Amino acid sequence: MSEPLSAEQVQERIAISPFIELMGLTVVSADHDSQEITMRMPLKPEFERKRGTGQFHGGVIAALIDTVGDYALGMMVGSGLPTINFRTDYLRPAVNTSLTATARVRRMGRSVGVADVDVIDDQGRLVAIGRGTYAMVTG
Amino acid sequence: MSEPLSAEQVQERIAISPFIELMGLTVVSADHDSQEITMRMPLKPEFERKRGTGQFHGGVIAALIDTVGDYALGMMVGSGLPTINFRTDYLRPAVNTSLTATARVRRMGRSVGVADVDVIDDQGRLVAIGRGTYAMVTG
Amino acid sequence: MSEPLSAEQVQERIAISPFIELMGLTVVSADHDSQEITMRMPLKPEFERKRGTGQFHGGVIAALIDTVGDYALGMMVGSGLPTINFRTDYLRPAVNTSLTATARVRRMGRSVGVADVDVIDDQGRLVAIGRGTYAMVTG
Amino acid sequence: MSEPLSAEQVQERIAISPFIELMGLTVVSADHDSQEITMRMPLKPEFERKRGTGQFHGGVIAALIDTVGDYALGMMVGSGLPTINFRTDYLRPAVNTSLTATARVRRMGRSVGVADVDVIDDQGRLVAIGRGTYAMVTG
Repeated sequence: MSEPLSAEQVQERIAISPFIELMGLTVVSADHDSQEITMRMPLKPEFERKRGTGQFHGGVIAALIDTVGDYALGMMVGSGLPTINFRTDYLRPAVNTSLTATARVRRMGRSVGVADVDVIDDQGRLVAIGRGTYAMVTG
Repeated sequence: MSEPLSAEQVQERIAISPFIELMGLTVVSADHDSQEITMRMPLKPEFERKRGTGQFHGGVIAALIDTVGDYALGMMVGSGLPTINFRTDYLRPAVNTSLTATARVRRMGRSVGVADVDVIDDQGRLVAIGRGTYAMVTG
Repeated sequence: MSEPLSAEQVQERIAISPFIELMGLTVVSADHDSQEITMRMPLKPEFERKRGTGQFHGGVIAALIDTVGDYALGMMVGSGLPTINFRTDYLRPAVNTSLTATARVRRMGRSVGVADVDVIDDQGRLVAIGRGTYAMVTG
Repeated sequence: MSEPLSAEQVQERIAISPFIELMGLTVVSADHDSQEITMRMPLKPEFERKRGTGQFHGGVIAALIDTVGDYALGMMVGSGLPTINFRTDYLRPAVNTSLTATARVRRMGRSVGVADVDVIDDQGRLVAIGRGTYAMVTG
């Protein structure tokens, strides 16, 4: 197991991923004590569910959840991790807003980890929640 | 409830979604009797997990599952539907391949529908599976 | 929509369910402001995964999660609710302990509600977590 | 990895579990080629959601799904396996009927396996579906 990654180090890691670059994620904070990481995703025109509505397509919110949940565990062990599975629940449409996703570790076992993700809009309203299981396999 | 949508009609519907356009989905078939719909997604450079690997990021596979599951029910009732929640399981890395997702209706109730999605690569190997719940609210 | 139910009223409601009686659930607290409800389940010999081990079978923990999540929403609207779907994650074996499950409302919409459930053992360790979606249909 | 278990051997294995005994499961068939296993659960008075209704409580259906999914993989490797997580979707009330659950392997990896479960009533109607992830750790 490597050293935990700082917010800056996670930002560098995700820069090598074209899809995360497409999502435009910014690492806002990374707290090793609370095992929480927060990232922000802007609204881009190509994320819209319907053209001109300003509403996010759910698919890109799911991708955000997968990624931020991954790095809650990944920052602790020094690397992104393979997702085993995850669940996304949509609670409210996300319209004309950026999205802020905070993931926290619920379990960090030897082989499997679990993280919860809350996604809020610019007014602080909960728009989606996620729960993912990740393989604790670095490398 | 409107008439069921043909494959061509679903293709027209999804064309108004910038995010689905980004995914590059093609409707391959839409069968109202078996309540199954199949779409294909190409590998684009911006979908890569890591630059140059040819491996899909899981997030775009989740987005594919959400969308195709949605239209298994949506084609039956004439419109895309709000996703309530869905689960994605990753079974195998998807590398240097397009992805073909087939969704079928498991339940179509008055207020809630459930669809299963299998995602295969160009060799026919199962790379991911999904299960989603959708609100049967058209309009 | 009826009045919210007190802990005593929830206890009376669940008494009419033979399966909840089998689980032996006690309502510990019901807080309408935080929208949280807590129930406790004893270890009974018939809940064991293997005879003589004192370890809960996961199935009865899942049943606990379903039920307590249901009443987080149900206490707010005056009635148990149909479960649409739920997810259970097992984090640690539960051995020679009672289980305390706390569910809180994450969303209470017109047609669908979402609740999260944390299950801890007598040492306060998290043994399982759940997330459920319920139909807001009373009657 | 041990030899695959026959239906009779799975029946013997589950006999050592008090909770599975409580559920009253009978192994109907176990097919190693299709990697499918089928079990049946009777309606007992203590499984009722409400006394006298003949309707199964969802919790015991979830427990059935967890267990049968487990043995789809477990029969292949010679032992029950720890559940990592699973999802249950309820499609229709199960009333005055026994339940027949068929689980099939979707993936059997070195560390993680995935199984799907369909639960039908005596009229062959689908009442619930499940999807579970299990740790491929025998012993």
